[in-house]
Amino acid sequence: MWFPIVVNTSVSVVSYLVTVRLIPRFKDMFIKANLFGIDMSKSRKEKIPEAIGVVTGCIFLIALFFFIPVPFSHSIFENADFPHDEFVEMVSALLSICCMLLLGFADDVLDLRWRHKLLLPTIASLPLLMVYYVNFNSTTIIVPKPFRQWFGFSVDLGILYYLYMGMLAVFCTNAINILAGINGLEVGQSVIIAASIIVFNFIELGGDLWKAHQFSLYFMLPYLATSIALLQYNWYPSRVFVGDTFCYFSGMTFAVVGILGHFSKTMLLFFIPQVINFIYSVPQLFHLVPCPRHRLPSYNVRTDKLEASVTKFKLSDLNTLGKLSMQTFRVLHLVRWKEEDTKSDKETYVECNNLTLINFVLIWNGPTHEATLTSILLIIQVLCSILAFSIRYPLASLFYDV
Amino acid sequence: MWFPIVVNTSVSVVSYLVTVRLIPRFKDMFIKANLFGIDMSKSRKEKIPEAIGVVTGCIFLIALFFFIPVPFSHSIFENADFPHDEFVEMVSALLSICCMLLLGFADDVLDLRWRHKLLLPTIASLPLLMVYYVNFNSTTIIVPKPFRQWFGFSVDLGILYYLYMGMLAVFCTNAINILAGINGLEVGQSVIIAASIIVFNFIELGGDLWKAHQFSLYFMLPYLATSIALLQYNWYPSRVFVGDTFCYFSGMTFAVVGILGHFSKTMLLFFIPQVINFIYSVPQLFHLVPCPRHRLPSYNVRTDKLEASVTKFKLSDLNTLGKLSMQTFRVLHLVRWKEEDTKSDKETYVECNNLTLINFVLIWNGPTHEATLTSILLIIQVLCSILAFSIRYPLASLFYDV
Repeated sequence: MWFPIVVNTSVSVVSYLVTVRLIPRFKDMFIKANLFGIDMSKSRKEKIPEAIGVVTGCIFLIALFFFIPVPFSHSIFENADFPHDEFVEMVSALLSICCMLLLGFADDVLDLRWRHKLLLPTIASLPLLMVYYVNFNSTTIIVPKPFRQWFGFSVDLGILYYLYMGMLAVFCTNAINILAGINGLEVGQSVIIAASIIVFNFIELGGDLWKAHQFSLYFMLPYLATSIALLQYNWYPSRVFVGDTFCYFSGMTFAVVGILGHFSKTMLLFFIPQVINFIYSVPQLFHLVPCPRHRLPSYNVRTDKLEASVTKFKLSDLNTLGKLSMQTFRVLHLVRWKEEDTKSDKETYVECNNLTLINFVLIWNGPTHEATLTSILLIIQVLCSILAFSIRYPLASLFYDV
Repeated sequence: MWFPIVVNTSVSVVSYLVTVRLIPRFKDMFIKANLFGIDMSKSRKEKIPEAIGVVTGCIFLIALFFFIPVPFSHSIFENADFPHDEFVEMVSALLSICCMLLLGFADDVLDLRWRHKLLLPTIASLPLLMVYYVNFNSTTIIVPKPFRQWFGFSVDLGILYYLYMGMLAVFCTNAINILAGINGLEVGQSVIIAASIIVFNFIELGGDLWKAHQFSLYFMLPYLATSIALLQYNWYPSRVFVGDTFCYFSGMTFAVVGILGHFSKTMLLFFIPQVINFIYSVPQLFHLVPCPRHRLPSYNVRTDKLEASVTKFKLSDLNTLGKLSMQTFRVLHLVRWKEEDTKSDKETYVECNNLTLINFVLIWNGPTHEATLTSILLIIQVLCSILAFSIRYPLASLFYDV
């Protein structure tokens, strides 16, 4: 059990060192290729290379390409029966990740449309679902105790379970992408999620499903290593931007280990801040409330701090659903809402903060320095991971027979 | 045997139609993303989108993702033993191709160095070699009759065979890339190679190794379909350029079917013009003779024809190997070579055509219109394929017991 994990850890350390060395070397190449962004929250407007996630993604893939034979060395050298089913899990996991890396990079370069962003992860997860089908095809879930009187002990979800797994890939790739926009946040949250999964995997190595968790570690350790290296360059003040490439690549990597490691529900627990951010964003994402192109906090040059960004619209522009959702948010004190009546055209104008977790923190905390803001959001992520563990372990016994 | 091939053909037809529709829609997106080139051989200097190979590559991948379950439908529906070994061949083939597509696109966007162009295909072929190892690991080759007195009936090449397969991937990806530069040539030659492989596969479907050739067809048919669609836009006058992306993607696809279809030697026979072009280019590629950044033929605006491009250098700049190779080429009348002595510095200056098959055709045929030149080169490719078949079938009996 431990031999491949030790080798994998060594490979991860090497990947970390390679990433740290390579990122600065690629910076100019990216800027030359027109792949750069201007940091909106800085007074100095310099070109920052964008989509550097493709560098860490490639190093991650190469590391795993070299690692592939290791878990199978026993079967190879001792001429035992080769476990093709485990091998195919590994290869198809890499295929889905590689595919998503390609699509993420294409998105950064070409600026794809929203429908692509939803369609492409679904397609990229097809090989994964196929492997799940032929290797396990277990679509039965255990019903939590309180619901058993209606649904029985277990329910076979059948095709719905595949739909759920496909949507998981779409969710993971986009969830990180929408909780983003300030230095170090995308990579920071991914590092915390990966670290949480690794802790969970190590705990579960002692259980019956240890093989699935060992499999997950093969991916998570090099992922964590390359991401930490990236974080060093992406932390405030960012010298590189990670791009959609990184978000897609990360999301798919998490989805892959969640699905093939059979802990997709537990994995969602590590995404609590992303889920909250998504739910909070729903009125804008589905255009119940006007949504500007960017919802980043706004930068105050004078104080060097970030402030919640706002959107202005006519109250009469909202449809019923829009009014209802915003009413709910206002009752719960989740938005900063200013109304102004004009006498000229008898319209009520509204100024409302953009609905992201980042802006929400800024409303409660007041104007905040960018590095502090990232730290607050990452502390929330860590607290949510602790919550996730306490749901998964002590509380689970209330709902399931452990 | 025929059911999956029929389904695959239908998938290929759909891929063709999708590609034809999608390419024009993506054109502006590529130009906006700074991915464009100026056609050097036209009087009109307009922006032509570059790296469109990534579009056909992605459609190819998506087509195959949907196709994956088809060859296994029998095992799935009748609960037979699932052939994991065949499944893993398919998935790892796709992984290598997807990986190469990503690297090709990264090269087009970022302009990678030469050492990356050699290193990356090697790495991308690792999963393939691993599958070859666990599924076949047959590294024994039958020795041709004339050599059996020295080597015996067969030789086990062991690790050398893997080295050969790794180099095959490097060769295929770069061979197409260096026989390029005029409208329609990259895609045209790839279409002819793919068509030749398909004919060969269909012939061999009647033999013992039919399964391997069926496997090859799964990849070659959609590849041919998407490439024909691309050729329509890339033919003279090109409305899109295909980029390194296409050359890498194509080369890896050929290498994959050659290796996993067990006909890598026959496949090399379909690369005769590329091999000749490579050998002819060696003095420049290895800098025995000065090599300019681009070796494209030069465009004569007045005649609207292409002429062989030349490189000028001092005779004394050549080292021994350079002099020897050029002496050989001159004796064989393979170069146009002009020497000029100057009295001022007592140096002999040389003007020599750039060593590519394209320039060679221009030396023999004189200035030629671009469309005609591409046609001549493609006719050579077809003739070489006919030669390949006559080597493979009638002549093979002289060297092997058939």
